[in-house]
Amino acid sequence: MQVNKQTLTVAIVGAGVIGCSWAAVWVRAGHRVAIFDSDISVLEGIRDRLLRNLRDSVGDPQASLAALEAGVVIHSTLEDAVAAADLVHESVAEKVEVKRELFERLDRVSKPEAILASSTSAIPLSQFTEGLLNRHRCVIVHPATPPHTLPATEVVPAPWTDAAVVERTLSLLEEVGQSPVLVKKDHPGFAMNRLQGALLIEMFRLIEAGVVTAADADKLVTDGFALRWAVVGPLQAIDLNADGGLEEYLARYGDIYDRMAMERHETERFVSPSLARELVKQFRDQLPLEQLEAKRSWRDQRIAKLKRLLAKKDSDR
Amino acid sequence: MQVNKQTLTVAIVGAGVIGCSWAAVWVRAGHRVAIFDSDISVLEGIRDRLLRNLRDSVGDPQASLAALEAGVVIHSTLEDAVAAADLVHESVAEKVEVKRELFERLDRVSKPEAILASSTSAIPLSQFTEGLLNRHRCVIVHPATPPHTLPATEVVPAPWTDAAVVERTLSLLEEVGQSPVLVKKDHPGFAMNRLQGALLIEMFRLIEAGVVTAADADKLVTDGFALRWAVVGPLQAIDLNADGGLEEYLARYGDIYDRMAMERHETERFVSPSLARELVKQFRDQLPLEQLEAKRSWRDQRIAKLKRLLAKKDSDR
Repeated sequence: MQVNKQTLTVAIVGAGVIGCSWAAVWVRAGHRVAIFDSDISVLEGIRDRLLRNLRDSVGDPQASLAALEAGVVIHSTLEDAVAAADLVHESVAEKVEVKRELFERLDRVSKPEAILASSTSAIPLSQFTEGLLNRHRCVIVHPATPPHTLPATEVVPAPWTDAAVVERTLSLLEEVGQSPVLVKKDHPGFAMNRLQGALLIEMFRLIEAGVVTAADADKLVTDGFALRWAVVGPLQAIDLNADGGLEEYLARYGDIYDRMAMERHETERFVSPSLARELVKQFRDQLPLEQLEAKRSWRDQRIAKLKRLLAKKDSDR
Repeated sequence: MQVNKQTLTVAIVGAGVIGCSWAAVWVRAGHRVAIFDSDISVLEGIRDRLLRNLRDSVGDPQASLAALEAGVVIHSTLEDAVAAADLVHESVAEKVEVKRELFERLDRVSKPEAILASSTSAIPLSQFTEGLLNRHRCVIVHPATPPHTLPATEVVPAPWTDAAVVERTLSLLEEVGQSPVLVKKDHPGFAMNRLQGALLIEMFRLIEAGVVTAADADKLVTDGFALRWAVVGPLQAIDLNADGGLEEYLARYGDIYDRMAMERHETERFVSPSLARELVKQFRDQLPLEQLEAKRSWRDQRIAKLKRLLAKKDSDR
């Protein structure tokens, strides 16, 4: 949705749910998009899926998208699709052998200066780029699903990824309206799925223990935390939830969460004293205690607006 | 915000952040509110805090609240505050001795048919109501913070809580616009804080391991999951994120999450096969696979609207 400095050509390789969503992200920002999928049965559905993504992301079912659509070309060979690409974005099956073979081909047929990005949600980049001649230009760009709707995006380099490639990828994503986050270690599951996984595991445990139903577990998040977290992140949220900020919150509730951590056979406490000190310092540097109350009002007014918007839910499907 | 069938008198005992937020919930729905706090220094700030909560929750800083304010009386003794109450809502310090002593008094000085509700976030109800003459009318009503902004509310009975009291509490909360969830077992941490705790613990781990910064950990939730979860809960979200629904999602990503569960020394898998089967059945009964794509469009259009609303962020404080 932003004006880009330079029109790029982005090759989308693998045109399933994620690939067609990425295509919408790049094309709506005014870039040229070249699409390829090895599964011929997929090809004819691509344009419909892409148009739906574009309409959904502008929130207007009647929007005229002819101009945007003109920027999209569907190719019948991988070579044609990537030939002119400044960035190649792969969203094929989550199989390491498939990705390894594809990246070997991409490394040969793409322009040597093109960035090679992977949408993988969990396979370490090192497992399928190690042997490449130009492995320094490979980087993981893993989106929240679907990226045309959700801006959060993990950027995960391999040990050999060039720092300039990481910087360029982060700034390109910012320019097209995504919200990129640098994941500094190739940690299993990266960061996003670890956060989601931690919440899902706890939900399954509570449902299995008969504490809440599945629908109610969803409702506790949808009608509670999610509204708050859409305005302030989970850490900032607890900082706002005690008059003395994070420090008071941790002093007051740390024991409860320590018990939770222990129940899970965690060897460490909920939060280490050194991390707690560091976070308290960060939060207080950003927002002095005397401004907490005003920030709470700001948060609450924003949440009230979100709720009014979402209250239209019941008349919708 | 809803028309209530009958005007009630609700006594708010403990007028800190949570008490004044609950007061706003009840008074904006047209009920009479009687407030008491044993800390005299708190009393003079109550009206300001309550007015701010009401303004924030209607989202209009200029709103005239005289009519609502007329429904609020601040009392100087506990006895006066609870004398006429149909529901007494306690939000005092999270100390079991304090609550035990207070509930003993409440049981003596309130109308025998009044519901006695506690906002405790973690102390089992059985620990401070066991010895009461009328313990059958005690129930935990634990809000997401703050309740005048966030509807999600846990209702947790003790083994001796009357089923009719639970039903009445759930329906009163629905009537005043909250989103109550029955927590069927007095599980440590109930359900809400266990969900939040699971996410926070994982965030702290990732920050401590140097994978992401604290600000980026917040951003991954704020600009990603929270937008999705405000529209569809975490379980429904994964159901929508594979063409074959939850069944395909679990088959495809279950291994990743199983590894996460094992790393935490969990003895069980991410999700047991029997729970997985039951959830797949529930989700398919609610939404046949052929309607998944249309539901995704609906989700994405709603998220696009939320994003537009939140994009005003930068011009705000």
